[in-house]
Amino acid sequence: MPDQKEVTIYDIARYLNLSATTVSRGLKDHPTINKQTRKKIAEAAQLLGYRSNTFASSLRSKRSNTIGVIVPRLNSQFMSGVLAAMEDTASREGYNLLITQSLEKEDKEKMNANTMFNKRVDGLLISLAYDTKSIGHLQPFLDKKIPVVFFDRTWDQSQCTSVMIDNYKAAYEATKHLLDQGRRRILHLGGSKERNVYADRLRGYRHALRDSGIAYDEKLVRISQLLESSGTEAAAWILKQKPAQRPDAVFGASDTVAAHCMLALLEAGIRIPDDIAIAGFNNDPISRIVSPALTTVDYPGYHLGDTAMKSLLEQLNGLPGAGNTNSIILKSELIIRASSQKKTSL
Amino acid sequence: MPDQKEVTIYDIARYLNLSATTVSRGLKDHPTINKQTRKKIAEAAQLLGYRSNTFASSLRSKRSNTIGVIVPRLNSQFMSGVLAAMEDTASREGYNLLITQSLEKEDKEKMNANTMFNKRVDGLLISLAYDTKSIGHLQPFLDKKIPVVFFDRTWDQSQCTSVMIDNYKAAYEATKHLLDQGRRRILHLGGSKERNVYADRLRGYRHALRDSGIAYDEKLVRISQLLESSGTEAAAWILKQKPAQRPDAVFGASDTVAAHCMLALLEAGIRIPDDIAIAGFNNDPISRIVSPALTTVDYPGYHLGDTAMKSLLEQLNGLPGAGNTNSIILKSELIIRASSQKKTSL
Repeated sequence: MPDQKEVTIYDIARYLNLSATTVSRGLKDHPTINKQTRKKIAEAAQLLGYRSNTFASSLRSKRSNTIGVIVPRLNSQFMSGVLAAMEDTASREGYNLLITQSLEKEDKEKMNANTMFNKRVDGLLISLAYDTKSIGHLQPFLDKKIPVVFFDRTWDQSQCTSVMIDNYKAAYEATKHLLDQGRRRILHLGGSKERNVYADRLRGYRHALRDSGIAYDEKLVRISQLLESSGTEAAAWILKQKPAQRPDAVFGASDTVAAHCMLALLEAGIRIPDDIAIAGFNNDPISRIVSPALTTVDYPGYHLGDTAMKSLLEQLNGLPGAGNTNSIILKSELIIRASSQKKTSL
Repeated sequence: MPDQKEVTIYDIARYLNLSATTVSRGLKDHPTINKQTRKKIAEAAQLLGYRSNTFASSLRSKRSNTIGVIVPRLNSQFMSGVLAAMEDTASREGYNLLITQSLEKEDKEKMNANTMFNKRVDGLLISLAYDTKSIGHLQPFLDKKIPVVFFDRTWDQSQCTSVMIDNYKAAYEATKHLLDQGRRRILHLGGSKERNVYADRLRGYRHALRDSGIAYDEKLVRISQLLESSGTEAAAWILKQKPAQRPDAVFGASDTVAAHCMLALLEAGIRIPDDIAIAGFNNDPISRIVSPALTTVDYPGYHLGDTAMKSLLEQLNGLPGAGNTNSIILKSELIIRASSQKKTSL
């Protein structure tokens, strides 16, 4: 579409009756050009529609000032907080973000990574797709020493930094809390075991049960994509069980799945938490807004995005030792709300 | 950081003992190179870490295959749906998205636009910041005939396409619905009148009152940033009014502000909808999850993002007449839920 000729420094020079060298220096804020001339040059550049030649200067500096970000899904409350922080932190340092989503598919993630490699991003931040089985598609970055930082859904790779919470501990504590409320048949709504976050949460759940002397029952673990519909389906499953075999608690690996399971149970006349106690994960806004309010794990998305981006920027800026950190574990916290709490007598 | 020399087609040629011309043609899937050789070249390129020279080819084609997107805030449920659709539609056509947020500030929006102009995006999609007073920062795009599409928060500009819903009609219908439930003192929680979306919603509210013979009372209009805290503060204001002067309904210009106003009112013992009926805007997930469920206007974010991107791509592809559309108005729909509905006797 752009059908006009590109404006060059020669056009600006002609317009102002200055030499091209002066214009070139002026545009770079060179100290030998006085302030008023620099201002005149900047104004003329704007007026004429001059675009600094970032392509050419990128080729020279080998920097594109662009960072690639691959997330599983853009349409996620948790991820929107992560991205907001990343953009804020990166833009303060003069970097822009090329953002793509894998839609939870390894194939699209590979394509995304390949495009970003060819667009010469200076670094890559990635949270893996639901079904990614290997990270061969990141090898070209590693070979070129382009820093890669994993966040949330990570991969154990000695050349990369991973930023996450201690999912095992968080899930252990959430399960322990339900056990402390006297619950014995706790249904776990989990995600793909291929992903560290869900594998670790499942392990935390299992170990909390074990430490309370409760046998693990694989019928009480339901793996899904953790969508709204997964929560509704879990509730339907619960309601089909004979009353004596029904779970007395649900621990969901996301607030979405936990809240929608709870809403469907409430609709069927189940009392929460009296009949079934519920806990989720993430501390999304819905966890505060649902009634009863949802017990959950506070997973600070904004802090995650900020930390992951800062770690990448430190590597780009060549801070000594910046690339030596293998994992950054952020604090998470169990937030106990009405959906799981034993009624205290008034 | 990248400290290795860039791999060229000459390196691939040497590695495979082929001519550089053959390698160059093979990489472009030229028909004169047989399939097996092309495969061998592709594999060697991957192995050696060859990056196609998109910068140089962009300079030649004057296309960066990158589209700029500026949103007010990334951390928004509504916007995350819009962006998910944009990314999906753009990536199918081989475009990538450079995404920035203005954080509701005109200054940052200007900087973002300037960066995108210099990064030579092929087109720009923008939803204006809360306090943007002019669109001079978009003039360089218009001068270069780089297509600009406004979405949601638009600006009346004859060279650009705007994609939105009929905010006036949607607000008129929501207010009319509250009036039909017998409400007479309707508080409107609105946004900046500088932005079409909020100005139009306010106008819809006023005209619905007028058509029902109710005098407009400016004390019943509260302008804010429509955040969670704005809703809580509105509730505090309502509770301070003498009972006879309290609003009997609230129409919020976002679900966030309406839901948090409702939650604070419920906490103070106000019955919803008996004492005060509530309606929001957007049909965010929280509107379904809050109790009572929130009456709202379904504003299809995914459809908005998809339509805005398609309109831009049509202009980039030079479809005849593609640039002649000034506005695309998407359907919206009032969704009546328990927060506003007259109780029917059973």
